[in-house]
This record gives sequence, C-alpha cells and structure tokens, in this order.
Amino acid sequence: MTATLYVCTTCRAGEVLEEDAPRPGALLHSALTEAGAPDAVEIVGVACLSACSQGAAVALSEPGKWTYVYGRLTLADAPDILAGAAAYAASADGLVPWRERPVIFRKQSLARVPPLPCLWRLPNE
Amino acid sequence: MTATLYVCTTCRAGEVLEEDAPRPGALLHSALTEAGAPDAVEIVGVACLSACSQGAAVALSEPGKWTYVYGRLTLADAPDILAGAAAYAASADGLVPWRERPVIFRKQSLARVPPLPCLWRLPNE
Repeated sequence: MTATLYVCTTCRAGEVLEEDAPRPGALLHSALTEAGAPDAVEIVGVACLSACSQGAAVALSEPGKWTYVYGRLTLADAPDILAGAAAYAASADGLVPWRERPVIFRKQSLARVPPLPCLWRLPNE
Repeated sequence: MTATLYVCTTCRAGEVLEEDAPRPGALLHSALTEAGAPDAVEIVGVACLSACSQGAAVALSEPGKWTYVYGRLTLADAPDILAGAAAYAASADGLVPWRERPVIFRKQSLARVPPLPCLWRLPNE
C-alpha cells in the first residue's frame, strides 16, 4: 500500500499576490517533489484542499488509515513534512505515536478523519 | 452506499468548561442523532477530529467521494448540517453544487481531501 501526501497547489498562505505570481502552495509542492517522496509515499498536487485561511496545507491519506490535514506550512517545513509522511506510511492505522510526529504535525493539525468503513476487499482476497 | 457524518464529541468549541460539563460537541452529536439521520447517511460520534481550535466540528466521508470537514458549528446549525449531509450523500463524488450547499458549508470548511485512489473492487464486481 502507498500513502498519499496531497499538497494544495493553490494556497496563498495569507499572502496578497500578483495574479501570475507563484502560489506558496505550488512552491511547497515543488520543494517536496524535488526533495523526493519517501518510500511508500506518493506526492500529489491538488488544486484546492479548502483550507484557504490556514494554508499552505497538506493532507495524508491511505486506505484503512486515519486521514490527517495540516496547515500554516512554509517551504522551511518541507523536510519535516516528508519525515512525517514517512512515519505515517510506516504506521498501521495512520496514528503515529505523539513523540514521533514532527512538531508541525503536533501543533498544526487542521483536522483528522477516521478510516472509511471498509466495504471492499482486495481483489485477491 | 452510505455517507458517514462524523461528529466530534469532545469539541469544547472554545468554551472553558467544568470537567463534568457536557461538551458542545457531544451536545451537537445528540441533537443530530435525535433529529435523525437523512436517508443514506450514518451519524457516527468520534472522540476527536483534531480540529480543536475550530470546533465544534463534523466531517462527511464516503468511499469514492471527496471528504469534507466543517468547523465553528453550533447546536443551531444541526438542521443545516443534516441538509448538507443529505445533499452530500445524493452527490456522485461529494462535490455538491455551490448554491445547493448550506451557508455553513460554504463558509466554514476546514478542509477537504480527494477520494482515496481506489485499489479495491466491490466484492461482487
């Protein structure tokens, strides 16, 4: 299984920008993809995570795991976002022990959502 | 398929409460369950949606659809939350047309997350 790290590419992060200026969310997406996704993590840009007043924002999601959304992120947070995504991918249920979470994940949670009730089976089950 | 309306039962909604006082989130959960879930919606209380500074909070989720999280909700919002949940359940992908969303869902989104990549098939497919 692969965890998905969604990165909002339209986040303005509270900045007033010229129309053609790069968005802080797009710059964060570039920084994360250039740094490279950890094992078992896929980085996916999303046009809007609807967390506009708390951007830049990312979300971590994987079938069978809790989904987490984090906000108020900056380019400087890219290494910690990737470390947190790796810990999430390595967890059984998305619930990474508190002390193993990067500080930004402890303090800048916007929301978490339980795993969806699993109505499906893997094709070969 | 059934949409799940998660309701944070531990939300303090910014209030300073006595230890044994009912939480605003728990009261909202009671109001929603007493009013009754719309067709194709299940109401599920959750101990924490990690949106503590923006509570009370709810989330709407269903396999194959976008997940939405809303915050800063009060007991008076219960009818609109249920109407919004019904519209979500009736939608194909969770993206309810803007004008058909309750005002609280237009203005109080905390986050949304894309549908999980579907790696599974329904048992009889």
